[in-house]
Amino acid sequence: MRNEAGGKAREVLARECDLILVLGGDGTLIAAAREAAPLGIPVLPINLGSLGFLTSFKLEELYPALEETIAGHLEASERMMLTASLVRDEKVVDSQRVLNEAVVTKGALARMIELELLIDGDFVCRYRADGLIVATPTGSTAYSLSAGGPIVHPAVESIILTPICPHTLTDRPVVVGDSCNVEMRLRGAAESVYLTLDGQKGLLMESEDRVLIARANERLQLIQPHRKSYYEILRSKLKWGEA
Amino acid sequence: MRNEAGGKAREVLARECDLILVLGGDGTLIAAAREAAPLGIPVLPINLGSLGFLTSFKLEELYPALEETIAGHLEASERMMLTASLVRDEKVVDSQRVLNEAVVTKGALARMIELELLIDGDFVCRYRADGLIVATPTGSTAYSLSAGGPIVHPAVESIILTPICPHTLTDRPVVVGDSCNVEMRLRGAAESVYLTLDGQKGLLMESEDRVLIARANERLQLIQPHRKSYYEILRSKLKWGEA
Amino acid sequence: MRNEAGGKAREVLARECDLILVLGGDGTLIAAAREAAPLGIPVLPINLGSLGFLTSFKLEELYPALEETIAGHLEASERMMLTASLVRDEKVVDSQRVLNEAVVTKGALARMIELELLIDGDFVCRYRADGLIVATPTGSTAYSLSAGGPIVHPAVESIILTPICPHTLTDRPVVVGDSCNVEMRLRGAAESVYLTLDGQKGLLMESEDRVLIARANERLQLIQPHRKSYYEILRSKLKWGEA
Amino acid sequence: MRNEAGGKAREVLARECDLILVLGGDGTLIAAAREAAPLGIPVLPINLGSLGFLTSFKLEELYPALEETIAGHLEASERMMLTASLVRDEKVVDSQRVLNEAVVTKGALARMIELELLIDGDFVCRYRADGLIVATPTGSTAYSLSAGGPIVHPAVESIILTPICPHTLTDRPVVVGDSCNVEMRLRGAAESVYLTLDGQKGLLMESEDRVLIARANERLQLIQPHRKSYYEILRSKLKWGEA
Repeated sequence: MRNEAGGKAREVLARECDLILVLGGDGTLIAAAREAAPLGIPVLPINLGSLGFLTSFKLEELYPALEETIAGHLEASERMMLTASLVRDEKVVDSQRVLNEAVVTKGALARMIELELLIDGDFVCRYRADGLIVATPTGSTAYSLSAGGPIVHPAVESIILTPICPHTLTDRPVVVGDSCNVEMRLRGAAESVYLTLDGQKGLLMESEDRVLIARANERLQLIQPHRKSYYEILRSKLKWGEA
Repeated sequence: MRNEAGGKAREVLARECDLILVLGGDGTLIAAAREAAPLGIPVLPINLGSLGFLTSFKLEELYPALEETIAGHLEASERMMLTASLVRDEKVVDSQRVLNEAVVTKGALARMIELELLIDGDFVCRYRADGLIVATPTGSTAYSLSAGGPIVHPAVESIILTPICPHTLTDRPVVVGDSCNVEMRLRGAAESVYLTLDGQKGLLMESEDRVLIARANERLQLIQPHRKSYYEILRSKLKWGEA
Repeated sequence: MRNEAGGKAREVLARECDLILVLGGDGTLIAAAREAAPLGIPVLPINLGSLGFLTSFKLEELYPALEETIAGHLEASERMMLTASLVRDEKVVDSQRVLNEAVVTKGALARMIELELLIDGDFVCRYRADGLIVATPTGSTAYSLSAGGPIVHPAVESIILTPICPHTLTDRPVVVGDSCNVEMRLRGAAESVYLTLDGQKGLLMESEDRVLIARANERLQLIQPHRKSYYEILRSKLKWGEA
Repeated sequence: MRNEAGGKAREVLARECDLILVLGGDGTLIAAAREAAPLGIPVLPINLGSLGFLTSFKLEELYPALEETIAGHLEASERMMLTASLVRDEKVVDSQRVLNEAVVTKGALARMIELELLIDGDFVCRYRADGLIVATPTGSTAYSLSAGGPIVHPAVESIILTPICPHTLTDRPVVVGDSCNVEMRLRGAAESVYLTLDGQKGLLMESEDRVLIARANERLQLIQPHRKSYYEILRSKLKWGEA
């Protein structure tokens, strides 16, 4: 998956696989998830760097993990994904699946942005902030956590809305159901405001642009070690239980 | 509901009703929920004081609301409740339903408490903190919010675990599925540690006591104005959207 | 102060004044502070928009405030400022006074930045974050507050260091003495990282650039109503004391 | 210092010393500080347990540290202390020095408490919270940090006011000058509300009681290793700089 011969290589490869082996960190896995999820192909992540929240097999576990997977002894954890679409003048400019989060955020030089949030058409609030993160439970331990969001177990079918440096101090993170249609409307002057998808793709936004976010139809099939619970990874990554 | 003639009046009354009218604040409603939920009787809350998160009809709306309810024009929002049991030496000392939260917390003079958290039998972590809040989505806008927890929409089937003043700064709020069995084990010396249920009942705990928490079988049927969305109440209570 | 005839108008004007009257919001005052502070000229701020933390005279108070100031009945509150210098290859690229804060922050598309913080030459830590805010007490109620920093009374001679969305959750805001020399070193790849001064000027940084920050020699002389305490403004702006 | 033969032993001993050697953890040091500070006797802390924020000599460093201290090669870091007095009906009920903090806090069973804060006689706000911590910079890395307060360097002459689980989400920590007179007034019903001093002494409060807090006249002379900076201890205790 890491070296692509051409622009389409990844997609073509994905279509011919029964299992995708991802060697790398959480970032590599996130990129692979976009191809694997819509095709329903399970992903076996092998961690090459420091321990990630998602990639919990070590390199030395590669062959045993492969054997166990092929023998059907390792089950896939299903991970909800979101589809984020950028809409301008009622037309979809771009649309993509994300495993972690879609973020509307301001450039370094821009002032605070103004963003209206609607859920299932209901007005929620107008944020004046550096940005707004719309995350999956999987993404709750990534950028959203740094911005003050809660840790949400992957089994909780939900979408997490975490503002970045909100001007209004009561603008706290909100968790809503995963069947919700989330809409962000960019208000006021909007110089260098971007929609960023899984931290890997950025789309320049214009004033009055809308971002529509909903649960994706397909889920990522993520193979994980059965000896390690979700909480064990949290404990290790967050250094819980130490002095 | 407010004046009870005798110790059992509330329960007896509840059994003979088709609808319970609660006149008071959120606290009165919480007390009524304990009786109403197991009997499946809907509750119509009339707010006598300042606007609550739960009691959103005003006194002047009492008769129209009653009429609309009887005519079947107002639907009940279902609110998940938890059952919390205090277990000592493998025996259940006490057990109660809560609408908002069960909290294990230290007395004013006690030092930090040590609490082990297990979910579905998996060890999550050992908290050294002033306490731990186990809240429903309904309770997410009450004590848990003050302790740094997220706002969780009532439709998200989940349990929110929010530590109070944790010694380990990475002990962040965690949201888990509502089918989880949550267990707290009190470790070390435990002078004046209490299990507090919906802020209305307190049980003195002893060292090695366990608290078992799971979703209650019955839900509260809470009648709410249809013109007011959940987000409208949030905006009003949290003063969103103002400068 | 608002309409400048030419590039130098503001500075030239400032040199010929005994008192600078600022009509506008906090942003206008911040711009005026840069000219007024080094010349020791007091500033009388008149608030044209919604109440600011700094500009606490209303338009209808303009003439009484002017009369009281001229009569010597209103005293100036001294506000500490910082001087921030961008250093590349041991040369100062740019240098400016700030009333609120100097911020090193990433662009919308950039990943997390790595920043080493040194205080008086002592290594403090390496931040992996969206950015780092170095604020004055006056700036503690501006951007730093949104990022989770404390409110610091202007009389506390200090510098506030508030990370923006830090990857390490224990990277909490730190308050150090105002005689400290603060140094930030940009590490690793640094695409579209900026030094932003009082939210009004941005300088593109390069990898290995350093930002040196120290207390400015001069303070802003800010005239304020004597009937309004600092805490009264906090209460009003932060809606304390309301339900 | 650890074994006292009688009630007054600690004070009598303290008066006859040139140097107090404290063997224990931060708690032992805090107790010793109360005796040592008013007499101006320096304290040499030897850490017997896990690394503390204050007690940074290890047991094996005891003799070298003693020799260096006697030879005058180790300087004492001065640590500001506070004097907290409980006042009832205009009479001082009790008064004590604290090194870390004075806290007004509710018992486990009590509801939220209401507390008015005044600084130099100016009304600041009315807290509805679990409590309020009034900390020194030394105490900023203790209880106050767990409650969301900033880290304040000991050289910053200040008092830190950190509410515990405030009902009003904008009640953020406030740092004021160390010459301020801080007053807390307990309002409304006050069952089982306590003033806790350095986590070691608790005084039951009554409704309308006041707590007056001001900088103590004497400072603790705390001997510390010269090879270890304040930031090095922070890094180690807070696990900064690790993944």
